[in-house]
Amino acid sequence: MTQQQFEANGLITLSSDFGERDPFVGLMKGVILGRFIEARIIDLCHGLPKFQPQSAGFWLERCWPYFPAGTVHLAVVDPGVGGNRAMKWLKLRGQLFVAPDNALLDSLETFPDWQGSQVFDLEDLQSLHLGSISRTFHGRDVFAPLVAELAAGREKPEKIGRSIPASRRERMSPAADSTGLRGTIRAIDDFGNLLTDIDADVTSSTSNQFIQYKDQVIEFKETYSAVPLGNLLTLVNSFGVVEIAVAQGNAQQRLQASIGDPVWLISRK
Amino acid sequence: MTQQQFEANGLITLSSDFGERDPFVGLMKGVILGRFIEARIIDLCHGLPKFQPQSAGFWLERCWPYFPAGTVHLAVVDPGVGGNRAMKWLKLRGQLFVAPDNALLDSLETFPDWQGSQVFDLEDLQSLHLGSISRTFHGRDVFAPLVAELAAGREKPEKIGRSIPASRRERMSPAADSTGLRGTIRAIDDFGNLLTDIDADVTSSTSNQFIQYKDQVIEFKETYSAVPLGNLLTLVNSFGVVEIAVAQGNAQQRLQASIGDPVWLISRK
Amino acid sequence: MTQQQFEANGLITLSSDFGERDPFVGLMKGVILGRFIEARIIDLCHGLPKFQPQSAGFWLERCWPYFPAGTVHLAVVDPGVGGNRAMKWLKLRGQLFVAPDNALLDSLETFPDWQGSQVFDLEDLQSLHLGSISRTFHGRDVFAPLVAELAAGREKPEKIGRSIPASRRERMSPAADSTGLRGTIRAIDDFGNLLTDIDADVTSSTSNQFIQYKDQVIEFKETYSAVPLGNLLTLVNSFGVVEIAVAQGNAQQRLQASIGDPVWLISRK
Repeated sequence: MTQQQFEANGLITLSSDFGERDPFVGLMKGVILGRFIEARIIDLCHGLPKFQPQSAGFWLERCWPYFPAGTVHLAVVDPGVGGNRAMKWLKLRGQLFVAPDNALLDSLETFPDWQGSQVFDLEDLQSLHLGSISRTFHGRDVFAPLVAELAAGREKPEKIGRSIPASRRERMSPAADSTGLRGTIRAIDDFGNLLTDIDADVTSSTSNQFIQYKDQVIEFKETYSAVPLGNLLTLVNSFGVVEIAVAQGNAQQRLQASIGDPVWLISRK
Repeated sequence: MTQQQFEANGLITLSSDFGERDPFVGLMKGVILGRFIEARIIDLCHGLPKFQPQSAGFWLERCWPYFPAGTVHLAVVDPGVGGNRAMKWLKLRGQLFVAPDNALLDSLETFPDWQGSQVFDLEDLQSLHLGSISRTFHGRDVFAPLVAELAAGREKPEKIGRSIPASRRERMSPAADSTGLRGTIRAIDDFGNLLTDIDADVTSSTSNQFIQYKDQVIEFKETYSAVPLGNLLTLVNSFGVVEIAVAQGNAQQRLQASIGDPVWLISRK
Repeated sequence: MTQQQFEANGLITLSSDFGERDPFVGLMKGVILGRFIEARIIDLCHGLPKFQPQSAGFWLERCWPYFPAGTVHLAVVDPGVGGNRAMKWLKLRGQLFVAPDNALLDSLETFPDWQGSQVFDLEDLQSLHLGSISRTFHGRDVFAPLVAELAAGREKPEKIGRSIPASRRERMSPAADSTGLRGTIRAIDDFGNLLTDIDADVTSSTSNQFIQYKDQVIEFKETYSAVPLGNLLTLVNSFGVVEIAVAQGNAQQRLQASIGDPVWLISRK
């Protein structure tokens, strides 16, 4: 675990379970720009399932490689806000991630590029001169000012909090059972595609494998358009995981699928 | 009422009842950037209840303190567009608010920091050299060019229109009836939390008070996590108003709540 | 067809059928800003009907005049992604449009201001040094890097691909049948307003005309507020097309309307 410096590039991404209907996200941006008017802010996703930090972690884990070094990612899915949960940052290939310390960021600590994590409390943020801090909206009152200062390069993450864990986490992978490799639906996108946690690297020989989900046997294809409109297919998607889809249709509706459902990757005899 | 100069900082917020599905908001941004490419634009909220200016007013009133002086806030909930309604701007602690003159901004004129308001018509905007003005989309054709010029500092609000009202408005507060202090649900957020118009300052001794809504007696807590998952609670939220919530649940669905419903703040004997 | 140079102004609009729930749009922005940190990015609309390129075309056609010369518009509605469909750009009055070559942009080639189109394939983009290209998300892997370079002025569209078509397309207009001029509902906005493809120029004398839709005869008005609340009306809207609306209500719900439904413009005897 190296403690290489993070060099801010001014770019901030925001992820949350706030939805887009209310002014919550806009308020975070107002606070950020009030401290650092040059910040470039990207909404990564605000439609995350509510109160489920691990769903935010899934997407962050799949998205971060597309951002440049120096980016600050703020993710706020924070069911414990106002209680005694700590906060956390971690560095990954020159990018910085900030979130409540509720396991949201844990999976990012499994990457070989992980460069260290620290946890911190409100007392560690005295140099920020935070104003009044509510018990219910730390996204606005704590995290927004913090990432503004980090993205402006005026605060160094290394000075905030104390290092944990001591070593890189082990990656949780789907395990084999008597049926096959048992994965889980981790996200469902706006098209109704079902994204699993089965990585591309266990599906190298897809013609000899298929996916079983509920009572369906679903064959691997290379693109959505490889089957007739309305047919089921599975593929290794653009995020490097196995996905179940319907060509120009909605797999969630067709299969009555939910996040957390099990799927099996099965090799033919 | 002072007429202190407004000093633009280039920041513009947009609020509307347009939703996020269509290109209406993007068009306003295109028009703004076409006139002032350096503008920094924040979407505050576009999911406001349609045709209800007072809902936009509620959120603006609760959000503006988080923006820096010099910000221009444009809010377009405009059921009277194309008719003979005027437009309005007001200044509040160095920030500028622009909207149709339909009561959307009225509650902002109750703050001690209010620095004056003016109403204006299309004829007052001749210096903007507006192009063709539709009868149905003044957000794009009138308000966007106007706030671009204001945020760029090329137009001074003081020169646009005529001052009203003469003095600060009186703040509308919930009134007592035989049951207790009778408030109203003013907004429901994406979590299903119910935001009332009962201000923090009337709830100073919350252990001696409770909220009654429909047939529920709901106790005050300090955070969402102070009750078991799925339980009802009430708290003074991060916007300084009394809110009814369900811990990691949805109070709107649980209580079949609607904007406009009455709630009572009751003191124990 | 002139091949006048396109002079980038740094402004990029994004349209897609991705929805706003997932990180797809944010990823495109991350890739764009990773290559061109000064880009100004506007979300035009991401709630387009899925897999229907012509719906994206309808809105682009109605929105582009509000953007300044030098703007790059990227539209990704791409049911053929990963197959052998080409890509396309076109120029219109100094603005540049980029999309999959699936008819999304065709209607833009009917404008007198059209300045030429070219189609291209992945092989034409070698100078971009694209990374790994997925089979399912060219918005992130191909289009985002491309528009970043175009908006930065580092790539010239004229050097990418081969010109088509040879001459300006003929504009498809509603045709007369025995009932009247037969138009089509092309879009339904978030208010439930029904936007048709009947242009303003065929409705010059609206007092002598009305709209028939299903079993309704609907009179022309100038604004939404010209009829009592809840009443049906038709008007030439701010996009220059005939629209069916309900005053402060939802015409889609009232009339059970769908995109593709026929409507008739009828002249009184």
